[in-house]
Amino acid sequence: MVKAAILGIGTVGGGTAEVLTKNRELIARRAGQEIELKYILCRSPRPGHPFESLIVHDIDTIVSDGEVKVVAECIGGATLAYEYVKACLEAGKNVVTSNKELVAEKGLELTTLARRKGVNFLFEASVGGGIPILRPICQCLAANEISSVCGILNGTTNYILTEMIQMGKSFEQALREAQEKGYAEADPTADVEGLDAGRKICILADLCFGKNVPTSAITTEGITKITPADIEYARALGYKIKLLGRAIRTGPNSVTAFVAPHLISKANPIANVDGVMNGISVKGDAVGEAMFFGPGAGALPTASAVAADMIDCVRDPATRVYLGWWPSEEGYVTGPDKLSCRWMVRTGAPLERIASAFSGVRFISVPSAPPEEYAFITQYMTGEELSARTEGMQVLARYRVLD
Amino acid sequence: MVKAAILGIGTVGGGTAEVLTKNRELIARRAGQEIELKYILCRSPRPGHPFESLIVHDIDTIVSDGEVKVVAECIGGATLAYEYVKACLEAGKNVVTSNKELVAEKGLELTTLARRKGVNFLFEASVGGGIPILRPICQCLAANEISSVCGILNGTTNYILTEMIQMGKSFEQALREAQEKGYAEADPTADVEGLDAGRKICILADLCFGKNVPTSAITTEGITKITPADIEYARALGYKIKLLGRAIRTGPNSVTAFVAPHLISKANPIANVDGVMNGISVKGDAVGEAMFFGPGAGALPTASAVAADMIDCVRDPATRVYLGWWPSEEGYVTGPDKLSCRWMVRTGAPLERIASAFSGVRFISVPSAPPEEYAFITQYMTGEELSARTEGMQVLARYRVLD
Repeated sequence: MVKAAILGIGTVGGGTAEVLTKNRELIARRAGQEIELKYILCRSPRPGHPFESLIVHDIDTIVSDGEVKVVAECIGGATLAYEYVKACLEAGKNVVTSNKELVAEKGLELTTLARRKGVNFLFEASVGGGIPILRPICQCLAANEISSVCGILNGTTNYILTEMIQMGKSFEQALREAQEKGYAEADPTADVEGLDAGRKICILADLCFGKNVPTSAITTEGITKITPADIEYARALGYKIKLLGRAIRTGPNSVTAFVAPHLISKANPIANVDGVMNGISVKGDAVGEAMFFGPGAGALPTASAVAADMIDCVRDPATRVYLGWWPSEEGYVTGPDKLSCRWMVRTGAPLERIASAFSGVRFISVPSAPPEEYAFITQYMTGEELSARTEGMQVLARYRVLD
Repeated sequence: MVKAAILGIGTVGGGTAEVLTKNRELIARRAGQEIELKYILCRSPRPGHPFESLIVHDIDTIVSDGEVKVVAECIGGATLAYEYVKACLEAGKNVVTSNKELVAEKGLELTTLARRKGVNFLFEASVGGGIPILRPICQCLAANEISSVCGILNGTTNYILTEMIQMGKSFEQALREAQEKGYAEADPTADVEGLDAGRKICILADLCFGKNVPTSAITTEGITKITPADIEYARALGYKIKLLGRAIRTGPNSVTAFVAPHLISKANPIANVDGVMNGISVKGDAVGEAMFFGPGAGALPTASAVAADMIDCVRDPATRVYLGWWPSEEGYVTGPDKLSCRWMVRTGAPLERIASAFSGVRFISVPSAPPEEYAFITQYMTGEELSARTEGMQVLARYRVLD
């Protein structure tokens, strides 16, 4: 039997305690021994809580208890959680986490520390919630030179866009309803501005390409400016607008990573990842393309991944730390503006102006379009080139097309 | 550095040699040491072959060479391959394989033998080709009580059905073209009768539910009787016909496993897995549903999974064998006839006969339907009940609906 602790008793912490308890026998069979939950760290007392008897308020109780071999960090953020995780790793405990902010900001340091201490630091739940994605990338696709990774990484924005696409709602209306249903926070900034997806694409890029991609090095564009008109134009050509995190190997020692709304053909299975689901595509030189879909958030799905990491820590105490990457040099991450693609442009500029700036565009007509507005798909060009061609032109919207 | 051998130099064996050579440095970095290919076993000489210098003709050369720590079996079948794999495991070598027939027929014995000898027997490539699926199930979803696994597990039949659906071809025409393109064998029986998918669903059921599902215990129905008319009726209601392998936990100690064509709603991402792609859905009590899509066959995708297994064998020599299951008792596997679902029925019976046998059916009308033919969707019922209700009725086709 091995003793475990959970830091935090919110959605993920509570869900993890529930899964460990409910599937206790099955987990013991698969882990090779029982995992007994000894502590749950929580700031304040929780009278009547089903796990009340396990609650402690001081991290030192856990850090100093040599019996505790596995700690699941479910607090969130990169301040307290960072201190606690570091203390647990320093004390020689295995740590697992669902905290994407922590892994994106401090993953390099924490994986290095874990390696030095000979323990595991695992974070399957930090990307794609319950979807198995980090292990498959690091193990099953280990023989591949990975060329790109791309996905719908945020359930809140995907829910909002799905409501806008399927029900014709405005962004504001869909956001309000998402907040009422608990899918979006009171302050939705981190989701709707693409910061959450940005953290996740950083972690994916770290693991796929082996070097650190700092969150500060990537550009993120959210979904707040997407209008029902944009969605209609996209629909007319068989596209959906989805918020994608993308990381692309652009050279032997350079990657581009960014978050932005994209037009995706409905023939691409990723386009059919709707509602709060996430979907991730990985391209490698041997496998071609592999895709992973599932619930990107939620108590039990995330707990499924957290508990699986705990099982892995326990199953084979001799297992080395597989997840990790190296520091990157200045200039390793480049902006997406040098990336060539087709674009959808919506503009109030007159036809002659468009014709003089672009050749070979494909105009999109929808019945609801105002008379002085045009939307079209360009040929392949970089963001820089598009900006140059549209200089002085009234651009109402511009989105990349995923090809 | 660790030395390796490949048994067989066909599509998968050749692809594996290619991936190991091409991505040699990257694989060495991820495996923690270089993997040097020392032998390729091949019955006859191959003058001029790029790996000619490595070719040996006698398995004993490999078995008796203590330097060889990892062997990739890429011969196929369950006779010679079985003998060779057993000899390698007995000699204390790690073995990986892409051979679904071998794993479905002899997996219980071989995983047990590997465990006894303290070596790995890994077979990620045996299901879903390059798609990471077995590791995700056994590791990432280890905290889940899995309730069902279901998927498009055979690329040949999916290609044929896709051509029938998209281009209106007959089964015979689509099969002939698949043979011309090399997607189907001269004798296509194992694919089109569902035997190949049957082996794969056995392996998935073994790992998901922990007990042996013999191939002899499952029923397989292929795609040879599917007509363009069936496809048209399905299309009229927003369904595609796909060949699915399914395994469902039906009780604490019983499973149902089978292969059969199903109607799948186009809103289900699995329905959009077209051509030679495979797609697998796993449902668990914590994760909900996770899906995995990708290339189910082909030299490099399959080699991607074979080489990844080799890396895993080398990366950590102390790693325990994770993949395995237990013997099952008589009666553990039950037939699908007790499984309740909706059905699509196509019949030449008169309306009154249908009305007297069924209540609450939904008729499907398509312009091309012959006047004396009816197609409808039933309410939920078992296969047994459907057979009873249609007794004496001319049934032209009956398919399960996946809900």
